[in-house]
Amino acid sequence: MDKIKENREFFKANFDILKSIKTDKQKGIAAPSFQKKYDLNADLIELPPLSKDILTKPNVFDCIKDRRSIRKYSHEKISLSELSYLLWATQGIESVKDKFSALRTVPSAGCTHPFETYLIINNVIDLNSGIYRYLPLEHKLLFIKNLDNIEDKINKATPNQPFAQDFVSKSAVVFAWSCIPYRSEHRFSITAHKKILIDIGHVCQNLYISSESLNCGTCAIGIYDQDIIDNMLDLDGENEFVIYMACVGKKL
Amino acid sequence: MDKIKENREFFKANFDILKSIKTDKQKGIAAPSFQKKYDLNADLIELPPLSKDILTKPNVFDCIKDRRSIRKYSHEKISLSELSYLLWATQGIESVKDKFSALRTVPSAGCTHPFETYLIINNVIDLNSGIYRYLPLEHKLLFIKNLDNIEDKINKATPNQPFAQDFVSKSAVVFAWSCIPYRSEHRFSITAHKKILIDIGHVCQNLYISSESLNCGTCAIGIYDQDIIDNMLDLDGENEFVIYMACVGKKL
Repeated sequence: MDKIKENREFFKANFDILKSIKTDKQKGIAAPSFQKKYDLNADLIELPPLSKDILTKPNVFDCIKDRRSIRKYSHEKISLSELSYLLWATQGIESVKDKFSALRTVPSAGCTHPFETYLIINNVIDLNSGIYRYLPLEHKLLFIKNLDNIEDKINKATPNQPFAQDFVSKSAVVFAWSCIPYRSEHRFSITAHKKILIDIGHVCQNLYISSESLNCGTCAIGIYDQDIIDNMLDLDGENEFVIYMACVGKKL
Repeated sequence: MDKIKENREFFKANFDILKSIKTDKQKGIAAPSFQKKYDLNADLIELPPLSKDILTKPNVFDCIKDRRSIRKYSHEKISLSELSYLLWATQGIESVKDKFSALRTVPSAGCTHPFETYLIINNVIDLNSGIYRYLPLEHKLLFIKNLDNIEDKINKATPNQPFAQDFVSKSAVVFAWSCIPYRSEHRFSITAHKKILIDIGHVCQNLYISSESLNCGTCAIGIYDQDIIDNMLDLDGENEFVIYMACVGKKL
């Protein structure tokens, strides 16, 4: 019960703590970049231009009304245009303020946006299955690696789902959002962490809404094996690790 | 730095902890009700039926694209129909599963929905200013109390805003979401708390999107004075307390 009490304290407003701390930002340390570096010689994959025309359910009222967590998908592939839209809706950059911050389709405390988006692609037209990373600044995809036995690996990374076993591996694409906590800690120090969790909720809700507008179903995944998924994505588990997941597929 | 390390651990997948714990649910303790009780003799305020016709920007693509944190509002009041829609979009119940759970417009881990919505009304047609609570099951409002010097009280509850001082009190309505952590702890015990923070992010993102569809501006408020706001809403600060806030007003 003490642990519950302690955890509840984590929810409380904590801005006054900042008065007694000097943050890295206040110390004059430069902010980290808002997008993780990548090999500039890598071949990037173009994402089709955004278009409203692909929406099958364009009315926002209908999208909010019909949104559910969907755990059954058809075998139909999703298109690269649809994936382009889902990535933009969840982490797309609308304008770059400066070297250290950019405005996105989702809000983030202090505009710190401490996430990267990894995709485990299983059933997308014109994309080989495997692991990719979204580059919001370029609105392009970076191919990371192939995965053998991809369904089996996804199942192992997302065990013990409460309502349906092994449904994640039947989706078209799995979003695995990693967190780079220092992006927010630089500014908010030990008060960053409540904000980061709320921010990833903002992101996932936009995935729900945008998926619904495409006749796709989404299910957020809070239960996953931290070590397996971090290893799969080559994350160190300390300075970057998966914080939340969701999968998307065409509705039956 | 130890505190930062400790906080980062809070983000990690933690489902395996549940294997070594007996949750209250597993002990056979009945789940708490999904809506806080209220005096059944109280006069409830009807909310107008939901209607798509009030949306000035109905296309979901446009709403996602144009969403920003808005901190300047016109003096124009929002209508009760608009408020009805914003409340439904953020916590509305779409179907009741049983006495202990209901499906809403936003997802929540294990369908536990550990939030109540309080409103500090300042500029809404046909509503006196003061504090109200949303009743999702009835889709009605419960009047709680009047507030003298409401702008002053809002300013005191939301000090130190980073980009604009005292803007919250210039909005039409302030959403103050409280958390009743036991609703989630009953099922998830000490692993509940990561989920609860993500869930309130889902809620707030729907407020951003639905506000945008009405030509209203929203700004999430992570910086607030916990004691002042909890006292204002008559919350005990332990079993129920404010976890996140946002304000809404007509755009300039």
